[in-house]
Amino acid sequence: MGFTGNTVKELEAIVGKAGVTLDSEELLCYSYDATGRSYLPQAVVFPSTEAQAADILKLAFANSIPVVPRGSGSGMTGGAVPVQGGIVLVTSQMNRILEIDRENFIARVQPGVIVGDLHRAVEEKGLFYPPDPASSSVCTIGGNVGECAGGPRAVKYGVTRDYILGLRAVLPSGEIIRTGVATAKGVAGYDLTRLIVGSEGTLALVTEITLRLLAKPEQVKTMAAFFDSVDQAARTVSGIMKQAIVPRCVEYLDEASIRLVRDSLSFEMPDSVKALLILELDGDSDTIEREAVQVRDFCEGHGSLDVILAENQAQADQLWQARKALSPILFKIAKNKINEDIVVPISRIPDLVRETRKIQEKSGLTLVSFGHAGDGNIHCNIMYDQRDKDQAERAEKAVDDLFEVTLNLGGTITGEHGVGITKMKFLPREISSIELNLMKGIKKVFDPENILNPGKIFIQ
Amino acid sequence: MGFTGNTVKELEAIVGKAGVTLDSEELLCYSYDATGRSYLPQAVVFPSTEAQAADILKLAFANSIPVVPRGSGSGMTGGAVPVQGGIVLVTSQMNRILEIDRENFIARVQPGVIVGDLHRAVEEKGLFYPPDPASSSVCTIGGNVGECAGGPRAVKYGVTRDYILGLRAVLPSGEIIRTGVATAKGVAGYDLTRLIVGSEGTLALVTEITLRLLAKPEQVKTMAAFFDSVDQAARTVSGIMKQAIVPRCVEYLDEASIRLVRDSLSFEMPDSVKALLILELDGDSDTIEREAVQVRDFCEGHGSLDVILAENQAQADQLWQARKALSPILFKIAKNKINEDIVVPISRIPDLVRETRKIQEKSGLTLVSFGHAGDGNIHCNIMYDQRDKDQAERAEKAVDDLFEVTLNLGGTITGEHGVGITKMKFLPREISSIELNLMKGIKKVFDPENILNPGKIFIQ
Repeated sequence: MGFTGNTVKELEAIVGKAGVTLDSEELLCYSYDATGRSYLPQAVVFPSTEAQAADILKLAFANSIPVVPRGSGSGMTGGAVPVQGGIVLVTSQMNRILEIDRENFIARVQPGVIVGDLHRAVEEKGLFYPPDPASSSVCTIGGNVGECAGGPRAVKYGVTRDYILGLRAVLPSGEIIRTGVATAKGVAGYDLTRLIVGSEGTLALVTEITLRLLAKPEQVKTMAAFFDSVDQAARTVSGIMKQAIVPRCVEYLDEASIRLVRDSLSFEMPDSVKALLILELDGDSDTIEREAVQVRDFCEGHGSLDVILAENQAQADQLWQARKALSPILFKIAKNKINEDIVVPISRIPDLVRETRKIQEKSGLTLVSFGHAGDGNIHCNIMYDQRDKDQAERAEKAVDDLFEVTLNLGGTITGEHGVGITKMKFLPREISSIELNLMKGIKKVFDPENILNPGKIFIQ
Repeated sequence: MGFTGNTVKELEAIVGKAGVTLDSEELLCYSYDATGRSYLPQAVVFPSTEAQAADILKLAFANSIPVVPRGSGSGMTGGAVPVQGGIVLVTSQMNRILEIDRENFIARVQPGVIVGDLHRAVEEKGLFYPPDPASSSVCTIGGNVGECAGGPRAVKYGVTRDYILGLRAVLPSGEIIRTGVATAKGVAGYDLTRLIVGSEGTLALVTEITLRLLAKPEQVKTMAAFFDSVDQAARTVSGIMKQAIVPRCVEYLDEASIRLVRDSLSFEMPDSVKALLILELDGDSDTIEREAVQVRDFCEGHGSLDVILAENQAQADQLWQARKALSPILFKIAKNKINEDIVVPISRIPDLVRETRKIQEKSGLTLVSFGHAGDGNIHCNIMYDQRDKDQAERAEKAVDDLFEVTLNLGGTITGEHGVGITKMKFLPREISSIELNLMKGIKKVFDPENILNPGKIFIQ
């Protein structure tokens, strides 16, 4: 039992010598994800077929070896980190787009496909896969399924879950399952598809994904609106939506964010700006030209200091730059950040902003908030220096306070990053033991030996 | 153990004398649903609060009495039929709309709310709840959650699942759970919400539903397009969607349907018509006026014999009349019908039509097909006389053949009606024993005593 020299031989028999890595530097590379937490695996394996993946799980099941599915390791909560060692199973060799069906608006893909590549491939055929997490140039669709990734376009188009029609997957026992349908509708039996979506790789190893696609919108229109009050900005967001205009993105930058990026931008902002909204409309050109004017007028009529309407792609890129420059520039403030993807009802965003200000004062740390205001999903970044024990403790307390505030406002501790290991201890604050026991019962049905991504989501 | 005289007393202690019915005529009324299959319960109970519902389940759990949740009994697969007797728990006294939150586009409702009432209530506030099954004037939102109801607007707006953010529910043990969120996004823990949606009342008794709402579309435009070939009609459907125009409804009537309703309609149809599409666009008035013309031109350019564009609500109602007159008029052909809500990929609709023609010839029965062509969800009605044993057998064989054909075309045996009792024996053709065992394992986690709606979905 457990991982032995013999395990290596058996793994090599399944995927070939080139498909198994034991090299200590390589093991280190696959020991962490975007959280920076690191746990060494005993081997990294790269199956290239579903049959190989199934054989790896059979071997692991028979020997009680943990198996941790991994896409690109860009996850934000430690989902791909092998906290109990064992095998990291990387999907990078299963990265083919198997089919794009224009007649039925469907694609079949393997889990290792990079989301950005999927976007390009379907858009070339006049189709559209809406979910677009910030990491789309590196993250895999398998990882997106595992975490139920969101991103800025969720306001209008929903999240990964809303585009997954069916799955092929390997159970921890090595048995292969098919869930869901390849049609627009389907309700036969319990919804295993959406149970696996967002289960953070703890229930089954996804080997093939059937995606629902849309027709590609004809045009996109980007604009930025500046406010001297967060309350105004938040009220404007729900005001726009009440007019039956649903922008595909409504991104928000708080005062601290604006201060950070201001100097690096190629457009002017009013001095008194305290909140910035970047809005993006899509649809046919006539409609969005008209809607853009409506949205601009609405913003201006609701206290906006100024509105910039991008006239072309270059100008649109400049506006987006404000948002995209943020993540790297954050490290100017402090060496480390904790990025929490909390969600509150849109109307409570101003309360959240007030409360984060209090947390900032109390902790003495800088908090920078930005994100998907259109669905209340704000990324709160707590900036600190990990090596400074006192700062680290204050940062941890700040996270605690932030979750408390979020739940009191009727929100959730995670909108799109999942629980992983970083939010494990907070999950019982949002979800009571009765529901957690149901989830643990489901985990046991799928994974009686607890070998698939063990030590995640729930404190056992 | 089991249902005794004492059970009646305890039920009366929970809901009061007026809340329990033992009267044999009443029991008969609650013994069947829209399938016409009838199984007598031992009591019908009408809780008016979640606490009462929980107490009923505690009592049933302690005494191993089956409990069958029931809304209006308009289900098409026997979901609300008490096949093992016991208690029918009717949600009609839990029918309050608790909250409509315009700021956050959310409603909280009890399960007994009639879907049509919900539509009206939210639309009065400028909001919109898209799912609209044909039975919306009588069916309950709780029933819609149980079956994951669809309806014609699913083409553009998706199904019930896509609008359920969170639930309160009572487990078979009587414990109360809360699932999901009251925000647009949320991924904390496994997706119990969507596991319960579509579980046909077998996992938990839903007591409160948090719904996602949209802004009400400014205007609706209805049109009808006539074709002398089903293939043309089907190709037109996917052609329209490729142009990035997504009608909110694309309803289809086959030749048999058209023949049935032709005389009762107040508009003219070309003689050679073999397929009718009723299309509905919604959005702001400028856009849909333009899109309507585009769709009309597209239909005319793709072999449509004629297109009627409704100029006002009265004309739109006339067009819809063709679709709405169908269900009652079907009984002109035969005393009984089996209505199967199969789904195939849109591009396979012409194949399905050819195959149903063969089934018609082989069975000697009349098949009438109509439904939601936009998502490939066709309602196939097999007309027969139940009292004629030979016809009943041929009808059963026709269902068998229809499901075989559907699965061979890459489809599913149920798009929106669920499995219930009528499709139970066919489910293993679509879903293999490995996945069925997972589902049965999940059922056991939620309902270890198998008291909640037993005898449904799975053959035990």
